[in-house]
Amino acid sequence: MATSGKVIRCRAAVAWGPNQPLVVEEIEVAPPMAHEVRIKIVATALCHSDLHVLKGEMLTVTFPTVLGHEAAGIVESVGSGVTNVKPGDKVIPLFMRQCGECRFCLHPESNFCVKNRHEVLPRLTCKGQNLMQFIGMSTFSEYTVVDDISVVKISDAAPLNRVCLLGCGISTGYGAAINTAKVVRPGSTCAVFGLGAVGLAAVMGCKAAGATRIIAVDINKDKFEKVKVFGATDFVNPKDHSKPIHEVLVEMTEGGVDFSLECVGNPELIKSAFESCVRSFGVSVVVGYTQEDMSIKPVTFLTGRTWKGSVFGGYKGMESIPKLVDEYLSKKLKLDEFVSHTLPLDRVNEAIDLLTQGKSIRTVLEMSTPQ
Amino acid sequence: MATSGKVIRCRAAVAWGPNQPLVVEEIEVAPPMAHEVRIKIVATALCHSDLHVLKGEMLTVTFPTVLGHEAAGIVESVGSGVTNVKPGDKVIPLFMRQCGECRFCLHPESNFCVKNRHEVLPRLTCKGQNLMQFIGMSTFSEYTVVDDISVVKISDAAPLNRVCLLGCGISTGYGAAINTAKVVRPGSTCAVFGLGAVGLAAVMGCKAAGATRIIAVDINKDKFEKVKVFGATDFVNPKDHSKPIHEVLVEMTEGGVDFSLECVGNPELIKSAFESCVRSFGVSVVVGYTQEDMSIKPVTFLTGRTWKGSVFGGYKGMESIPKLVDEYLSKKLKLDEFVSHTLPLDRVNEAIDLLTQGKSIRTVLEMSTPQ
Ligand SMILES: NC(=O)c1ccc[n+]([C@@H]2O[C@H](COP(=O)([O-])OP(=O)(O)OC[C@H]3O[C@@H](n4cnc5c(N)ncnc54)[C@H](O)[C@@H]3O)[C@@H](O)[C@H]2O)c1
Ligand SMILES: NC(=O)c1ccc[n+]([C@@H]2O[C@H](COP(=O)([O-])OP(=O)(O)OC[C@H]3O[C@@H](n4cnc5c(N)ncnc54)[C@H](O)[C@@H]3O)[C@@H](O)[C@H]2O)c1
Ligand SMILES: [Zn+2]
Ligand SMILES: [Zn+2]
Ligand SMILES: [Zn+2]
Ligand SMILES: [Zn+2]
Repeated sequence: MATSGKVIRCRAAVAWGPNQPLVVEEIEVAPPMAHEVRIKIVATALCHSDLHVLKGEMLTVTFPTVLGHEAAGIVESVGSGVTNVKPGDKVIPLFMRQCGECRFCLHPESNFCVKNRHEVLPRLTCKGQNLMQFIGMSTFSEYTVVDDISVVKISDAAPLNRVCLLGCGISTGYGAAINTAKVVRPGSTCAVFGLGAVGLAAVMGCKAAGATRIIAVDINKDKFEKVKVFGATDFVNPKDHSKPIHEVLVEMTEGGVDFSLECVGNPELIKSAFESCVRSFGVSVVVGYTQEDMSIKPVTFLTGRTWKGSVFGGYKGMESIPKLVDEYLSKKLKLDEFVSHTLPLDRVNEAIDLLTQGKSIRTVLEMSTPQ
Repeated sequence: MATSGKVIRCRAAVAWGPNQPLVVEEIEVAPPMAHEVRIKIVATALCHSDLHVLKGEMLTVTFPTVLGHEAAGIVESVGSGVTNVKPGDKVIPLFMRQCGECRFCLHPESNFCVKNRHEVLPRLTCKGQNLMQFIGMSTFSEYTVVDDISVVKISDAAPLNRVCLLGCGISTGYGAAINTAKVVRPGSTCAVFGLGAVGLAAVMGCKAAGATRIIAVDINKDKFEKVKVFGATDFVNPKDHSKPIHEVLVEMTEGGVDFSLECVGNPELIKSAFESCVRSFGVSVVVGYTQEDMSIKPVTFLTGRTWKGSVFGGYKGMESIPKLVDEYLSKKLKLDEFVSHTLPLDRVNEAIDLLTQGKSIRTVLEMSTPQ
């Protein structure tokens, strides 16, 4: 392309500091170095993890930064040595890398590539300052640069303003039920705490795995109408009960659910989700993010329950994301139903307000002219 | 037998209150009621869980009580409706019951029978007072009465002063590695924290599952000689290191062990065992008992590690204990190596001192004349 090898000047939503509105600025995007890929972002959605960063809750992120990690775009140019994508390819950037060679990449059930912990050199600058690339991404920008082990080619037929959701929230929730909680089997009883996009996708995953009873828990009753679409069978609002919510669930299920999934990031709820599981073979999966502490009695483990966590739904992005895109294209996986709003990048602060106030599921930000 | 249907007067070590020496008293043992079995105890070992009770750390136990739950004996008489054992059978009493009918008994991987939580009516009295039967057992007595779902017949060839160890500690540690931590496979790296009988048996289980590296951790260096017998390959004394022990283990194993097992019951060590595991697919199993609290950051779960607990090694006693006895008889399983001392019941307080001071692995108390 004409821009190849040159710095691109384009628009991005810059977070200059914690708890401040984002500012759409003109920024410079460096050309990709060896094993890097410059992507023209077409659509990017807002995930609650972006809000955690903006609130200063992700300690490894420094400001100024550009948020956004749930995106899809088209490769603009590639650095030397890049073989997995080429200019013009439709792609999804991956916040969980996959080098393909480390102990984790070689393990059949792991998506924790050692390269996830590598520092990413900033390729984005604004007014003479480096912009930190949050988890190596920064998709609230018309262009961004990522490592080649952080991006995967997807079907040419994919509508980017939909499949962008597979870059984080939907894969995270769906995979947490399908991959991480092996316990979800035909006939299982599940509970999902928190009905944002991650929780709704977890409900969809429980359904796909054959669960017969799926209890959806949220303090925002507006979410219950939505979650029916994904297969929830029961709806519990903790505000409607005086007793602890896990006691309510244990009673409803005569001993506890087979599987529970926390998609909020609240220490008390994480404990409740654990205690909602049936003794012995119950499994609770933590997906929500929080930096707070929680106090537990280790003797609780002697109930035999299993507690684990899941990032990006346990998916190895390189193999799985193109398949999930295809499942969407063949109507096996819902995505449209998660999109509550579509806005241009300029209105990113409205998207933040909508999510903060619990009024949106996913707002898709479209970068420029619709594709 | 001549005693059938009558109250038996015999000797038992009574715990009159917390933190007091046990007193060998004459007690009365009622005849078994429907679905109960009266057992002549031949040999019983002391487990650290008995010490927890004696220190008043098991909140559900009230005094006076008779401790002891790792035992073997011979059925003296049975109540009506008992079909699984008959007078004269060699048996091991089970502190984890197995009704065979509940949701847990019917689950292939669970040993948490709902009947575990049922109250046991005291059949033992002394000086006009009921003696609480700790976890339905009380084997520090020449005779005791248990439910028929709490006792299993074993091979006539079994030496009771050895197979008594299968009543708790050895099955617990061995099973935690074999059953609970599915992750132990040929080639695995394991760490076992605490080298009492439970920990040594866990090491033996890791070895049996094919682990190639087994790191044994204890603050009592005298334990390292013993654990070699069971297959440990590395020995770590936290006292020899200034940095946290999980950091030592993560360095030794280039990222962490596949499986760790806590067999002490110390909140800090339980956390260390978790953090010693490799991110993503590491599994940590809690076996040690403590009523203390611990503080953790739920975000730790987002490392993908799995945390679970195990009671009685996950074994369903009715099927598994007779098999373990047979494995001992065919020399596939070690038991003799765990017996560091043999004493008569009268000297039970010496056994308690030895275990408290870390000078014994298992002391077997022999009830009367050796069988
Ligand atoms: N582990 C991962 O890989 C991963 C990936 C993406 C997001 N996350 C995390 O998952 C969480 C959810 O993300 P999202 O985008 O779906 O967020 P969201 O804001 O859309 O949804 C959160 C939901 O939780 C509900 N909620 C809040 N407090 C509650 C309570 N006490 N009880 C019940 N419900 C409660 C809210 O009403 C809302 O419906 C966030 O913490 C996010 O950072 C983790
Ligand atoms: N979950 C179950 O089913 C089950 C069954 C039996 C026993 N238990 C529990 O398992 C634990 C062990 O029982 P045991 O009979 O083997 O006890 P034990 O006293 O024989 O052994 C405990 C070992 O831990 C070591 N230790 C103590 N503090 C330590 C530290 N900070 N770091 C490293 N090592 C340390 C001691 O030196 C000792 O070798 C107890 O808490 C007991 O109650 C649980
Ligand atoms: Zn890798
Ligand atoms: Zn996200
Ligand atoms: Zn049962
Ligand atoms: Zn025990």
